[in-house]
Amino acid sequence: MNWKIILRTIGILLLIEGGFIFTCLPFSYYYGGDDARALIISGVITLLSGFSLLALFKSSKAADVGKKEGYFIVASTWMIMSLFGGLPYMIHGSIPSLADAFFEAMSGFTTTGASILTDVEALPKGLLFWRAMTHWIGGMGIIVFTIAILPIFGFGGMQLFAAESPGPTKDKLQPRIKETARLLWGIYVFMTFLETILLMLGGMNLWESLCLTFSTVATGGFGTRNTSIGDFSPFIQYVITIFMILAGTHFSLHYFMIRGKFKLVWRNQEFRFYLFLILISTLVIWTALGVLSETGIESSFRLALFQVVSILTTTGFATADYLLWPPFTWFLLFLLMFIGGMAGSTAGSVKVVRVLLFLKVFRQQIRKSIHPNMIRNIMFNDQPVQQTILGGALTMILLYLITFAGGTLALIITNVPFLDAAGSAAACLGNVGPGLGAEGPVGNYAHLTALSKWILSILMYMGRLELFSVLILFAPSFWKK
Amino acid sequence: MNWKIILRTIGILLLIEGGFIFTCLPFSYYYGGDDARALIISGVITLLSGFSLLALFKSSKAADVGKKEGYFIVASTWMIMSLFGGLPYMIHGSIPSLADAFFEAMSGFTTTGASILTDVEALPKGLLFWRAMTHWIGGMGIIVFTIAILPIFGFGGMQLFAAESPGPTKDKLQPRIKETARLLWGIYVFMTFLETILLMLGGMNLWESLCLTFSTVATGGFGTRNTSIGDFSPFIQYVITIFMILAGTHFSLHYFMIRGKFKLVWRNQEFRFYLFLILISTLVIWTALGVLSETGIESSFRLALFQVVSILTTTGFATADYLLWPPFTWFLLFLLMFIGGMAGSTAGSVKVVRVLLFLKVFRQQIRKSIHPNMIRNIMFNDQPVQQTILGGALTMILLYLITFAGGTLALIITNVPFLDAAGSAAACLGNVGPGLGAEGPVGNYAHLTALSKWILSILMYMGRLELFSVLILFAPSFWKK
Repeated sequence: MNWKIILRTIGILLLIEGGFIFTCLPFSYYYGGDDARALIISGVITLLSGFSLLALFKSSKAADVGKKEGYFIVASTWMIMSLFGGLPYMIHGSIPSLADAFFEAMSGFTTTGASILTDVEALPKGLLFWRAMTHWIGGMGIIVFTIAILPIFGFGGMQLFAAESPGPTKDKLQPRIKETARLLWGIYVFMTFLETILLMLGGMNLWESLCLTFSTVATGGFGTRNTSIGDFSPFIQYVITIFMILAGTHFSLHYFMIRGKFKLVWRNQEFRFYLFLILISTLVIWTALGVLSETGIESSFRLALFQVVSILTTTGFATADYLLWPPFTWFLLFLLMFIGGMAGSTAGSVKVVRVLLFLKVFRQQIRKSIHPNMIRNIMFNDQPVQQTILGGALTMILLYLITFAGGTLALIITNVPFLDAAGSAAACLGNVGPGLGAEGPVGNYAHLTALSKWILSILMYMGRLELFSVLILFAPSFWKK
Repeated sequence: MNWKIILRTIGILLLIEGGFIFTCLPFSYYYGGDDARALIISGVITLLSGFSLLALFKSSKAADVGKKEGYFIVASTWMIMSLFGGLPYMIHGSIPSLADAFFEAMSGFTTTGASILTDVEALPKGLLFWRAMTHWIGGMGIIVFTIAILPIFGFGGMQLFAAESPGPTKDKLQPRIKETARLLWGIYVFMTFLETILLMLGGMNLWESLCLTFSTVATGGFGTRNTSIGDFSPFIQYVITIFMILAGTHFSLHYFMIRGKFKLVWRNQEFRFYLFLILISTLVIWTALGVLSETGIESSFRLALFQVVSILTTTGFATADYLLWPPFTWFLLFLLMFIGGMAGSTAGSVKVVRVLLFLKVFRQQIRKSIHPNMIRNIMFNDQPVQQTILGGALTMILLYLITFAGGTLALIITNVPFLDAAGSAAACLGNVGPGLGAEGPVGNYAHLTALSKWILSILMYMGRLELFSVLILFAPSFWKK
């Protein structure tokens, strides 16, 4: 293992993080909050740590970055970013404990959106901007990680990406990290720009528009108000809904869309299944709400659509307390937590493509048991899917469910009630945010013990890195020469 | 589809069922219960139905039984047996409603052991004997289904069986249905005989010994007393524990054991993993009980072991109300419900072998991501496992979990509380019996609505037939020429 290159890379990442912390200062000064000092100190500490690492470990050649170094860098990035990312909260004193600050920062960088804050509005504007910014940085990171880095490792992401890119090879995104990253970030920044403008057209100020946009495009979920998105106008709620759907879409589809290749987008099976899931779940919940309440057709449609999209894309915004709805509707939302958005988006959880591949495997097994001599490949976007990709998808889903069960067990051991434990484990592992019970859409994670919070932080982390990238570090063969 | 042969086969099965109903009469007369009339009427109705079918549909050649007919016969057997099996309860009047009687009979034939009876001891002895007998018949059926019939269909069972049979080909059980069935039933009857004798040596009378033995060897769980096994002596509890472990063991291992091939038994990886699961779970729960209670070392060991074995083998007997234990212990037991005993035993649920195969696939994927050029087959009992077997195992586990989630959702819609819904769905789908909440080890399913009971009956049925055998009937291609 080439530790020098690892520590240098972490140094560079800390410089970037430190730089981002300073971008929160204008809002701190404009709104006259008491958080400028905390932001400056945190920024300086982060920058200095970055410089020290670069100064201490002089350049090795970039060619030395092997596979193992790559894994290690990815796995440590989210940890170290979260440690430093919690500094502004701790130094300012609004989140004094390490467990809480780390939870909030990890929840930010993993684009989860689970919060230990009981009163969001009490925080100064600069800190809230940093909080939303952690989502945005995390979203950037995860797109590059899943689309640009994982394929080079030839692990998980690559196959998924290959399976998803429809059409001839020349339409595929350039596989080189830098070029791909620049392209993806371009799309990401453009989406951010567009949503901010639309929210401002809806009457929102620049600060709040940016905060909510950061949360949306990263499918994060941190809000600026205690009522999440519930207070805003229908126009703003629809804008956020549409951008949540876009953020949960594979970013190569945005690329195709920009290049005018709508046919490729529409022919993408994962995309269609993703839209189908949104549609059918919304219809079911809309019906349940429509029959049972007096809120009016448009209003109950908006409530149903917003909550379905928010949970399925693993954003976690809320415009209603779904726990007050008929039990089967929130259980349905709970099940959607285990699907998530499309692969190659900022969404967390299992991803639509894996669920779809499972359904295809299942259908084939039924067919094969009726016609044993049938030889037919499983097709995805008109291309045959390799056995290893199918095996990888099924294994990941199972591993995900086992991690969910293990996380629930760990939380129960730390005295979290069953329903809350299951809800929190699913919401954090899936990077959704709000769970069931006391940690639901109008609740928060403040009341849990430090140990429970550490467990949930680890679940967010494991979920965000698609499990394998974390678990691989625990394999003995990883550490052998 | 050759309907004649299907209806003839069902006719024969009804004759067998009718015959079995009459074996309960001696106990009815001996104990002077008021159930003789109900048993005789039920027996006659069942026999007459069987004769009518045979008379109406004159013999086709046996060669006409194709694959589709086979699937259909298997799938309809449990349904029809349960319909007629509920007659004694309904005619006697102790279980007047159809939903309840069908639930109790389905719970019997699927060897689940979930009951809608609030006071077991109030039933006359003859009816209780029939109740235990349904377990025993169901256990016989399932062994033949998984070991003898499924392999001939070349579906699921075959591969699993091949994967489990260690050693050279000549050690494999004869694949022909009749011969295999005779051999397996010999083992089954021998086990029944042995446990009955041992229970009688423990001071139990013949009737109760037979009832509890039927429940044990079928991993059923219907008891004779309201306290299940809690009232009996430690000797009897240990005997039942050992026979539950034996009943949860692949029956070909019993065959090897009888032939003195202990090495083959010990080298079987599924068997060792099965014992490991029992050991580790018992140790964890024993520790938790030992630290927290004053029951004494042996007593808390016995409690932990009994409950672990009862749940893991999907029997469902109880010597304690585990819901009063620390929450993590019953959540651990809840997780064991999703594993079950060994394949080729009378146990339900996912089966140990599939969990083990999943762990092997997972380990290989981790290794492959570190050494991408590694080519190594996944081995099971020193033999390489085919990709289709691995795919089948993973698909079945996932399908099982999805069915569990769907069943829970359906129960929640019928107003069952979340915890109860999850517990009941897991307990019935896994053919375990007692769940969580009001349907726990000291509770029962009596208070549920008829609709909830029908849902749970279907879950028992689907779980018992390993899902595929039921779902295949819903595939459009199954019904095409």
